Amino acid sequence: MSTVKPVSQAETTPRVKVVFDDIRATRGSEHINHFWRYLAFDPSLLEATWAEVKQVMATPSALDPLTKELIYIAVSVANGCGYCVHSHTAAARAKGMSAAQHADLLAVVGLAARTNHLATALQVPVDSAFDRDAVPDRS
Amino acid sequence: MSTVKPVSQAETTPRVKVVFDDIRATRGSEHINHFWRYLAFDPSLLEATWAEVKQVMATPSALDPLTKELIYIAVSVANGCGYCVHSHTAAARAKGMSAAQHADLLAVVGLAARTNHLATALQVPVDSAFDRDAVPDRS
Amino acid sequence: MSTVKPVSQAETTPRVKVVFDDIRATRGSEHINHFWRYLAFDPSLLEATWAEVKQVMATPSALDPLTKELIYIAVSVANGCGYCVHSHTAAARAKGMSAAQHADLLAVVGLAARTNHLATALQVPVDSAFDRDAVPDRS
Amino acid sequence: MSTVKPVSQAETTPRVKVVFDDIRATRGSEHINHFWRYLAFDPSLLEATWAEVKQVMATPSALDPLTKELIYIAVSVANGCGYCVHSHTAAARAKGMSAAQHADLLAVVGLAARTNHLATALQVPVDSAFDRDAVPDRS
Amino acid sequence: MSTVKPVSQAETTPRVKVVFDDIRATRGSEHINHFWRYLAFDPSLLEATWAEVKQVMATPSALDPLTKELIYIAVSVANGCGYCVHSHTAAARAKGMSAAQHADLLAVVGLAARTNHLATALQVPVDSAFDRDAVPDRS
Amino acid sequence: MSTVKPVSQAETTPRVKVVFDDIRATRGSEHINHFWRYLAFDPSLLEATWAEVKQVMATPSALDPLTKELIYIAVSVANGCGYCVHSHTAAARAKGMSAAQHADLLAVVGLAARTNHLATALQVPVDSAFDRDAVPDRS
Repeated sequence: MSTVKPVSQAETTPRVKVVFDDIRATRGSEHINHFWRYLAFDPSLLEATWAEVKQVMATPSALDPLTKELIYIAVSVANGCGYCVHSHTAAARAKGMSAAQHADLLAVVGLAARTNHLATALQVPVDSAFDRDAVPDRS
Repeated sequence: MSTVKPVSQAETTPRVKVVFDDIRATRGSEHINHFWRYLAFDPSLLEATWAEVKQVMATPSALDPLTKELIYIAVSVANGCGYCVHSHTAAARAKGMSAAQHADLLAVVGLAARTNHLATALQVPVDSAFDRDAVPDRS
Repeated sequence: MSTVKPVSQAETTPRVKVVFDDIRATRGSEHINHFWRYLAFDPSLLEATWAEVKQVMATPSALDPLTKELIYIAVSVANGCGYCVHSHTAAARAKGMSAAQHADLLAVVGLAARTNHLATALQVPVDSAFDRDAVPDRS
Repeated sequence: MSTVKPVSQAETTPRVKVVFDDIRATRGSEHINHFWRYLAFDPSLLEATWAEVKQVMATPSALDPLTKELIYIAVSVANGCGYCVHSHTAAARAKGMSAAQHADLLAVVGLAARTNHLATALQVPVDSAFDRDAVPDRS
Repeated sequence: MSTVKPVSQAETTPRVKVVFDDIRATRGSEHINHFWRYLAFDPSLLEATWAEVKQVMATPSALDPLTKELIYIAVSVANGCGYCVHSHTAAARAKGMSAAQHADLLAVVGLAARTNHLATALQVPVDSAFDRDAVPDRS
Repeated sequence: MSTVKPVSQAETTPRVKVVFDDIRATRGSEHINHFWRYLAFDPSLLEATWAEVKQVMATPSALDPLTKELIYIAVSVANGCGYCVHSHTAAARAKGMSAAQHADLLAVVGLAARTNHLATALQVPVDSAFDRDAVPDRS
């Protein structure tokens, strides 16, 4: 069940084919997962979304690829996106996430959720020590 | 402003003092941040929460301490807990997070939020390739 | 799967029949979607909910019917309600939403989610220019 | 700071005055809290919202008044509404919530948040035993 | 579909068997629901999670068992955890929740969600009367 | 209070100045709101975010500018981003949103939140009539 109909012959649309080919080349896999196939109902949305995913997730940056996948899973869990939890857990495993790391991720996510709710329930005022606006310019 | 009144002389309560002393010893810092000072209105809740934070965040495990802080921040952002975003961004910095890593974290969090909302809007069906229930027992 | 059992002969309950007949008359359709059939386990909850839906969505007001459906979808996506995303996407289409408008809606929803998370991660202070409390009484 | 300007002489608007007087009479208190004062920028929205609050929270029903306030706080925490957490914690206290009950509420909220996130991270399939659709009609 | 594979012979792992036996004894039921069976992929996570559930939900405390289940459902709904809504609605029913109480719970949850969103949209400033920090120490 | 320190002389950084000048030219206003000033701690993140905001919000598309702002506000409310609610309510007003339209927006947002929570609490199964996957290819 979905709210848009995936185009059955998506790759006969040239703009879609260019994106799908780039996904395959970037990931080194023939599999195009459903997210992209449904998003293809609008080529502009597909292009813009893939461009950002490629830039953020597939370009070397300050954090390593596995750490970025763990962060992605964490956000997806907190936002309650089942599809995203599935796809990024699979991606993290493909990038080497062990069962122990998966369990550790879940322990942190569960703990954060717990203290997030406690801090919100208490309406704790922020410590002045945490305020970056107060840091002198040259420190 | 808060929903509970912090006990002004929290450490005259022996159970609170034991927890505060352990927080100081574990973190190597005299500062007890507000979260713990307000949570101290109920010593049992304070003890149980600190025990889990110490176990998950301050005990060596499959993920390194900075990675765990980054995940903590990600969940806190998605759950909209301002206090937690502040306290764990400060903690991540204390554990060595660079400005470039901070920016990278934010890029992943922002991207995940975007695709989480798109996947939910499309109601994308989960790819069978992601299903772990279908993995044979001995594979 | 559901957490309540829909009454198989819902319309033999007079209060339920009155609401269902009004839904049909208001919408000009014989179809009563599942939401109402399950909510009918409690006639008072059914009546109160339908009364508000009819008042807000089916009464001419400052925003046109399609704009109201787009807003409804946006909230439902952010709240992660799959059922609601489905039912209101169908409703928006019935009120004339084109594929291009649907894609535009998704682009805005995805962008908003991204900047929402960034602003929360940065804990940006609100600009005084945005404060309505500061607007003089006679301005 | 707010996004609307409260009318300084709200009660010179007859429709607003009727609602404010009913809030005072229902609650047995002269205090009209900010939520209502800001919502008064639109008398229809004020009337509709107060009518539902009065019906659900101030009319005897299957759950007692304090239990309803505890549920209200729980939802407000999970939705991250700071104002609502404040106003309903004060209301629960006014209806007799003890410090021990408050701590117990927070323990349940924190635990639920933790297991909510774990179940979402695991994408646990629902047990057939929980399905009400499967219950025979006459059971 | 799930993101981890439940161990088919979970109870051949001694640490898992100890937890499962305690769940059965505590609940007086042979049924171990899916949440625990999937969480068993990591015995430490299983033990820590069950320990907290048992402490908070199955130990006599300031709130009665049914009230705690209602709060649990409320948080689970607001966090959008379908599995948790199912399992705790079933648990509440097992502890005596009537259909009228269930409907009342839903009415409060729905109302809270509505006013949570209104207060956030208005960015209502918190009334000073709600501030516990301002309460004198000896009051 | 914020989690990053805004660079006091942001516009001495050439990449930041280019973005700020484009924001001013695009909006026809000298005011650069805080979101951009804090995001400037990382020029790449600033550039990527502004590029998407300009593309989605300031380029003519299938939905008119005011409708897009209303959708933006709706998502920001549901995600609990106070800053975003402020900035986009101001933007909507600058684009002509009347008080009556604002009230109508809030009525829809509040209603959607209420039924989102009810549908999640009931775990209503999706009607087959809503399924776009089932629509024949040539219909």
